[in-house]
Amino acid sequence: MMTMKKFNQTTDSVAAVMWREPVVLSPQSRINEAVERIRQTGLPDQNMSHCYVVAEDFSLLGQVDLRTLLLSRGGVRLETVMAHPFVTLRPEDDQELAAQLMEAYDLSEVPVVDEANRLVGIVTADTAMAVLQEEATEDMERMAAMTPSEEPYLQSGAIRIFRARIPWLLLLMLSAALTGGIISHFEQALAAQVALTAFIPMLMDTGGNCGSQSSVTVIRGLSLGEVRFSDWMRVFWKEVQVGALCALVLAAVNFLRLMVMSQVGIAVAATVSFSLVVTVILADLVGGLLPILAKRLGVDPAVMASPLITTVVDALSLLVYFQSAVWLLKI
Amino acid sequence: MMTMKKFNQTTDSVAAVMWREPVVLSPQSRINEAVERIRQTGLPDQNMSHCYVVAEDFSLLGQVDLRTLLLSRGGVRLETVMAHPFVTLRPEDDQELAAQLMEAYDLSEVPVVDEANRLVGIVTADTAMAVLQEEATEDMERMAAMTPSEEPYLQSGAIRIFRARIPWLLLLMLSAALTGGIISHFEQALAAQVALTAFIPMLMDTGGNCGSQSSVTVIRGLSLGEVRFSDWMRVFWKEVQVGALCALVLAAVNFLRLMVMSQVGIAVAATVSFSLVVTVILADLVGGLLPILAKRLGVDPAVMASPLITTVVDALSLLVYFQSAVWLLKI
Repeated sequence: MMTMKKFNQTTDSVAAVMWREPVVLSPQSRINEAVERIRQTGLPDQNMSHCYVVAEDFSLLGQVDLRTLLLSRGGVRLETVMAHPFVTLRPEDDQELAAQLMEAYDLSEVPVVDEANRLVGIVTADTAMAVLQEEATEDMERMAAMTPSEEPYLQSGAIRIFRARIPWLLLLMLSAALTGGIISHFEQALAAQVALTAFIPMLMDTGGNCGSQSSVTVIRGLSLGEVRFSDWMRVFWKEVQVGALCALVLAAVNFLRLMVMSQVGIAVAATVSFSLVVTVILADLVGGLLPILAKRLGVDPAVMASPLITTVVDALSLLVYFQSAVWLLKI
Repeated sequence: MMTMKKFNQTTDSVAAVMWREPVVLSPQSRINEAVERIRQTGLPDQNMSHCYVVAEDFSLLGQVDLRTLLLSRGGVRLETVMAHPFVTLRPEDDQELAAQLMEAYDLSEVPVVDEANRLVGIVTADTAMAVLQEEATEDMERMAAMTPSEEPYLQSGAIRIFRARIPWLLLLMLSAALTGGIISHFEQALAAQVALTAFIPMLMDTGGNCGSQSSVTVIRGLSLGEVRFSDWMRVFWKEVQVGALCALVLAAVNFLRLMVMSQVGIAVAATVSFSLVVTVILADLVGGLLPILAKRLGVDPAVMASPLITTVVDALSLLVYFQSAVWLLKI
């Protein structure tokens, strides 16, 4: 039998979810020996559908699926029918990688090998499916500024939910003091033109919406393996283009609305619309690039999403707004 | 051979992703006939691992997996070794349901039957896995107020991304006019006490954060099948408790910060903190209950998340704030 080594096993590693006792045979074994072995020991999991061919030192040579066993003649040697496992994992790999590989190559199970190519376990697609679900839930929770929880919502006590939510709420509330500080700094300007206050929510919300659109797109791309750090220039350029298009449409609609439906003069309408253009483009860039930077720094991009992006975008949008007001309205 | 009917096939239905040509045999067939049939026709997909036993009218009687075929003697009749398929799907079922069932019962494939229990197709776990991933991505995109796209981000052109984002941005920007209207309505009060303006971003942000925390939790619970419409009272009560706990901590910290670090008097600090309490509880309730209501009305809960919740929470938080200011500060 195989001897099992201890691995440097984290909860996110392949080692933590792999099956440790695959059916292994030598390359000289025959089909009917493999069938007999499966009959005696069984496959570790009902959804498992391969036995594995290993050399004397347990290094992985190939795999044979149940269908091949079923359709081959009993006397055939495994080495003549085995398939080369073109994807293998290491015990210390991330489970998310396992799930991505199985989905990309449409595999039902993947062998796990150590640094000397010795077979140490098997990961199955149903495990990978559960991992993907859990990762997606965690990403959503982090994007909404919560500490991920393993427990279903209705089964969690109020205190537990409270503890997952309150640290982020406190952090975000205190960071909003920065935004408040910007407003206080321009208090005299505001007192001269109180009408400006009415546009603060619209500017902050629109900036926030743009930031969350670009950040969610990039965060999801990062977790599906579609976006990498080296793509940052492409993300930058794409968000500049998308931001400029959105900014122009939003500013035009906003300007028209203010001219037609409100009593503010053309100068205020122009100030608000100009601020909108700058805010939207900056928000798209911040939302698109901060998650990539986070990934590069080894921080979970989803954690970065809400707290930092909201704060940065809010502060930027107000600075742009008030500074434009000071310039354009001469207040 | 089976004759295939046309189904009322939507892109989200099981019919759209099922394999239509399973290997079917009669209950009197023997193991070696089944093996011969698989040898001749093959299973439709490499990850498929069952043949199916049907009556003369094609109604589903049982299923036999490759392992059973491999380990049974050739002369045994299928009816003696077949397993009863304890989960079946209908062609018009939602793909998300298929994925949930396969994950819950750890199945690698599920047969699809029509209203007369006739076998019409098979759904495999790798299809379900892709569906789950796509649904999670779509939920995230909708929560961030975007029209879901099938294409990876880096492969999508700027115009296409722009078109997925701009309708929501416009809608949200115009709905923020409502919030602006509330501010204009209280313009005189604000002119008398411009310092109040500095706390608008903090109140709106905190309300928005609470709303997105509770809504993401409930939306994810709904898509994983953990939360149902009938649970709305439990969600209500849980969010009241969690909201009250968060509100008290946030208000206390905010009050202390204002007393220690800013020049505003105790009356303003009390007004801001009181508004914070009411806003946080209302935001948690709106975020928790609107997605459930959306699901009940047949609207995607994730679509409901950003647009409506942001607008409702913003408007509520400002109304509470200004009304408290008018009462408590007598302005």
